[in-house]
Amino acid sequence: MPIERIAILGTGLIGSSVGMALRESGFSGDIFGWDREVVQAAIALGREAITEIADDPLTAATESDVVLLSGPVFSILEWLKELAPVLKPDQLVTDVGSVKRILCERAAGLYNEAGKPGFLPGHPMAGKEVSGSANGDGEIFRGAVWLFTECGEGMSPGARAKATEWRKWVQKFGSRILDLDPVRHDELCAWVSHLPQFVSTALSAMLEDMFPHDEDLRAIGGRALREMTRLGASPYSMWRDIAHTNTEAVATTLLALEQRLTHLREHLKTAELRDEFDLANRFRLGTPRKKEPATGTIE
Amino acid sequence: MPIERIAILGTGLIGSSVGMALRESGFSGDIFGWDREVVQAAIALGREAITEIADDPLTAATESDVVLLSGPVFSILEWLKELAPVLKPDQLVTDVGSVKRILCERAAGLYNEAGKPGFLPGHPMAGKEVSGSANGDGEIFRGAVWLFTECGEGMSPGARAKATEWRKWVQKFGSRILDLDPVRHDELCAWVSHLPQFVSTALSAMLEDMFPHDEDLRAIGGRALREMTRLGASPYSMWRDIAHTNTEAVATTLLALEQRLTHLREHLKTAELRDEFDLANRFRLGTPRKKEPATGTIE
Repeated sequence: MPIERIAILGTGLIGSSVGMALRESGFSGDIFGWDREVVQAAIALGREAITEIADDPLTAATESDVVLLSGPVFSILEWLKELAPVLKPDQLVTDVGSVKRILCERAAGLYNEAGKPGFLPGHPMAGKEVSGSANGDGEIFRGAVWLFTECGEGMSPGARAKATEWRKWVQKFGSRILDLDPVRHDELCAWVSHLPQFVSTALSAMLEDMFPHDEDLRAIGGRALREMTRLGASPYSMWRDIAHTNTEAVATTLLALEQRLTHLREHLKTAELRDEFDLANRFRLGTPRKKEPATGTIE
Repeated sequence: MPIERIAILGTGLIGSSVGMALRESGFSGDIFGWDREVVQAAIALGREAITEIADDPLTAATESDVVLLSGPVFSILEWLKELAPVLKPDQLVTDVGSVKRILCERAAGLYNEAGKPGFLPGHPMAGKEVSGSANGDGEIFRGAVWLFTECGEGMSPGARAKATEWRKWVQKFGSRILDLDPVRHDELCAWVSHLPQFVSTALSAMLEDMFPHDEDLRAIGGRALREMTRLGASPYSMWRDIAHTNTEAVATTLLALEQRLTHLREHLKTAELRDEFDLANRFRLGTPRKKEPATGTIE
């Protein structure tokens, strides 16, 4: 198998969870872990999410078959630029970032061309509202969709073999793979992931702002409020980058929901409320359609 | 113990769940069940949520110590009017309706006065997005708050003894009791229960409307979207009555959230986004404060 050494740059919640999922799925090679906060890498090592703490991320990357970039989007953008000149054509970079269009734009000319390393943008639709390697969990990918948005046709055969194997590891984590165009990825994720986050943040912030000391309100909130405000605990550090790099798509979804709420508010006592409930009752989350990805592999 | 016979008028999700909770908590008396749809009562009987199907709800009520009204709010209003002239002063009516102010207004002059039956308005903060006695579950009240909003001072000693015992049964279900003023109840429930429902309905309806056949969107929606749209499956029949009887409070919460979302949308790339995340990060659901209820019982 081509992948024997993996470097995880960013051993927080998702990075350490990937490390755990690799080990639990039978990966027996080296996992070098590096984090801006060394304590995150130390906890990841303690939990056996990585096999070794990397003192120097660039060295770890150059010595690895696959480099996983696992941090906020701006950090991924930075690593893409720094790694491109030091990696060889048969090395593969992949990531777990929440937006993809800007990454593919950044990768153009640096990856997936003759003489350049490979880059396979990835995005597991899994996570938690808490951060840090202490909360890492190799099981969070089970049943989740792992999106890939390949960009560029010129990946070397060596990097392509590693991309194919990386997709197999992702499936061993229990994830279902779906290939999307990067722009469509960002638009769909604005609706299904970014909008829920910002609604939950707005709702939580509003309640904290308006009822800072109301114990009754906090006591009687049941499962409905708990679910709707759970993501309110999500860290700004991660979502700032998404707000900055998918601004237009996110703003479109927010405006649409604002208008929908206004419509509902103006029709609380009319038959149009029934129409809204009828539509809402029909909405069902489903399972991913099998698609033939750009690589020609059916998964 | 004063309560030996209970009539449940409306053996849907909550009515049948209360019947099951009673039996699982050791209630060994009769539970007469009636529902507008006889099949709901039949399923409730099959699941042992009730001990007998009542052919005539008024007869079942007059022969019971406690009458539980468990249906949409308008049906509770109707039963309050119909039952008042046929019940005796030592009989107790209670309910599980989602609004309370209008019930207390309707009960004025009919209940909790000399020669009139007792009425203890109640509201378990528990439920499911699906309806019907087939989904009944005596465990849904465990860990939930059960609100009471007593109205009127003149409950007879016989009815008051049953109210005290009913509160003990509710605690045996695993619920924590909190006493509130009816108007404050409706305002708080607009924020913690009605707003989450209408946001989930609006979000689900919008996605169904805009992406009726997009399988990718449905496939990649993870836990975040699943939680935010779960209540979209809730039945119009129940929420219409809440929208009609708590209109002003609900509209206030919807307008506030619309404005909050607009603010967030206009500040996706400014430092105010950090402020929203900071506030949201501070919001925490808690446990109910112990209060001395109007009856003088501390629970």
